[in-house]
Amino acid sequence: MENLDAILVDHAHCEMKAASNALALAARAVHAPQIVRPLIALAEEEMLHFRMVLDELDRRGLVLGPPPPDPYARKLRTLTHEKPSPIRPPHGPLVDRLLVGCLIEARSCERFRLLADALEERGPADLAKFYADLFAAEARHFRTFMDLATEVLGDRKAVRARLEELAEGEGEIVARLVSEPVVHG
Amino acid sequence: MENLDAILVDHAHCEMKAASNALALAARAVHAPQIVRPLIALAEEEMLHFRMVLDELDRRGLVLGPPPPDPYARKLRTLTHEKPSPIRPPHGPLVDRLLVGCLIEARSCERFRLLADALEERGPADLAKFYADLFAAEARHFRTFMDLATEVLGDRKAVRARLEELAEGEGEIVARLVSEPVVHG
Repeated sequence: MENLDAILVDHAHCEMKAASNALALAARAVHAPQIVRPLIALAEEEMLHFRMVLDELDRRGLVLGPPPPDPYARKLRTLTHEKPSPIRPPHGPLVDRLLVGCLIEARSCERFRLLADALEERGPADLAKFYADLFAAEARHFRTFMDLATEVLGDRKAVRARLEELAEGEGEIVARLVSEPVVHG
Repeated sequence: MENLDAILVDHAHCEMKAASNALALAARAVHAPQIVRPLIALAEEEMLHFRMVLDELDRRGLVLGPPPPDPYARKLRTLTHEKPSPIRPPHGPLVDRLLVGCLIEARSCERFRLLADALEERGPADLAKFYADLFAAEARHFRTFMDLATEVLGDRKAVRARLEELAEGEGEIVARLVSEPVVHG
């Protein structure tokens, strides 16, 4: 709450990375062409969010600073190597990337809820509403990534089991993060 | 003309990479905040093109295959290091990335014109129109990147001089490419 400006700048970069990631996934979904268009639609929504965060920066007279280091994303990238998937290629790696997306959305969801609640009590009301709306969007994206992973594999139970495995690793990563004014700090 | 299917798949990946690149530039334009939104608008247009190429693949019963190797983009990335910019940081590197974007658009422009002309003579008429339209879009994007680089530096002459320097290197790269059924082959 004491570093909302820094949070907003980090948040803008998060939305940009989410859009890029959705596009990169679309280009890699060559064995599951049915999920290409939903991923493009997701990228478009993330770009809309990127612009919305830029609007918030403008309203506060702030400019988009350089992206802060992102140890959360960096560690998540190695997680799927450290815990090899029981799902065979070509679907294993794609399902993993979709599930990592899933976890990032779930974690953002948690953070935006915390921010919205704190802002409702003692912050600018417009920003409280902004984060409450984004909380709902991230919850929806969590579901989208789960559905896409299930669509790829055709086996909801296996996807769910892999998600739980990765979620455990994600929890350990987050527990070890240094507290910083960033979305995933 | 004998490998239109392969060209379309490569082209889809090119549009995706163009969208990602515009987004990455937006996030790096921290010393030139005025160009962030035009770059997001550009990324949105590239995503629209990505979807348009997917539509063409659908119409032909093709699916998005894996991205072919892209030696053109790989060599362009090293070009700016091999010919260091006379423009000082922080603007030098950003101007260079914008000008590389400029050159890619110009080269795509050339290729789409060649394709459109050949298709008008002996190809599906709808595809001829498709590439003629995209030719116009790429020409517009060339101009956009030039204007953004000038906006960043505030010195059109210096931007033009650097473009000419890089264009010479790009020409040498293209002359050495092996002929392949890809947009930048």
